[in-house]
Amino acid sequence: MRKVILYICMSLDGFIATEKDDISWLSLVEKEGEDYGYVEFTSQIDTYIVGRKTYEKVLGMINDFPQAKQYDCYVLSRQDMAEKEGITFYNGNIVELIDGLKKREGKNIYCDGGGEIVKLLMDHGLIDEYIISIIPTILGNGKRLFKGGTPPQNIKLISSKAYDTGLVQVRYQKTEPC
Amino acid sequence: MRKVILYICMSLDGFIATEKDDISWLSLVEKEGEDYGYVEFTSQIDTYIVGRKTYEKVLGMINDFPQAKQYDCYVLSRQDMAEKEGITFYNGNIVELIDGLKKREGKNIYCDGGGEIVKLLMDHGLIDEYIISIIPTILGNGKRLFKGGTPPQNIKLISSKAYDTGLVQVRYQKTEPC
Repeated sequence: MRKVILYICMSLDGFIATEKDDISWLSLVEKEGEDYGYVEFTSQIDTYIVGRKTYEKVLGMINDFPQAKQYDCYVLSRQDMAEKEGITFYNGNIVELIDGLKKREGKNIYCDGGGEIVKLLMDHGLIDEYIISIIPTILGNGKRLFKGGTPPQNIKLISSKAYDTGLVQVRYQKTEPC
Repeated sequence: MRKVILYICMSLDGFIATEKDDISWLSLVEKEGEDYGYVEFTSQIDTYIVGRKTYEKVLGMINDFPQAKQYDCYVLSRQDMAEKEGITFYNGNIVELIDGLKKREGKNIYCDGGGEIVKLLMDHGLIDEYIISIIPTILGNGKRLFKGGTPPQNIKLISSKAYDTGLVQVRYQKTEPC
């Protein structure tokens, strides 16, 4: 069965961006030749889900959205969006979207945030795996990965790996309640 | 120099207790003979700082506060508190308290939370080390370890260790800004 996998970075204090959406602190762990497993991870996915704000943030930064060319790409938005090749803007029921995707053959489904989409998926227990890279910094404030207000989720550690840059990548999978 | 060390557990989503102060989920990682380094850690401390709410929570649970017999014990409180042997209730300036402790000879200083005390210490850059045990659960909601609204803190990973119960313990030390 295809899995929905959250693959994301956060600061030790749980933020994915500053209040002003700055993510330049991610450069703390930039290292020539080190991708923290990203290429291996993306080799196992063919579908990409992201929130509108994150989508617009990427577009604003690099004037492109490369995921649209690589994956079956869904941008979740409550707003009317200008059409863009390779992207489905989705304003419907999240459970139906994920159920529909899982009924089809395919690789895993990559969720790239942000916090609102993570909350939306968690509200319905739809995240199967969490791959979280903890960046060695404390931002103090900002946009949270876990916004709170979701049901509890039972998870199990799959692996944990510390890199010499100080990044710690933890992987968990959803489990059924005991 | 004596260090102020935060030693605490949190859920993957950054909570130290549920909204109703439940910490029974910590039993997820209880294992005969496994203390996750606690005895070794406490062998290097002689002073203990905790917030009033956490103090009262412990008192309410076990009708005792064993730290008062083991350590030089400070409970930070803005309220008038009933005297208790071995405990200094402190309502003064946190910077003066920590500076005063550091000027004395002694072992390290253990901060046990909760979130308000962590924020207070972080507001003044007073935490020298963070030892955080990430419990393999997502609570969804509750009392946050990092409440937000503090200045950023520069930190460096010292170590990371995964246990077979799924607990991941990460250790960081404060560094100076680059």
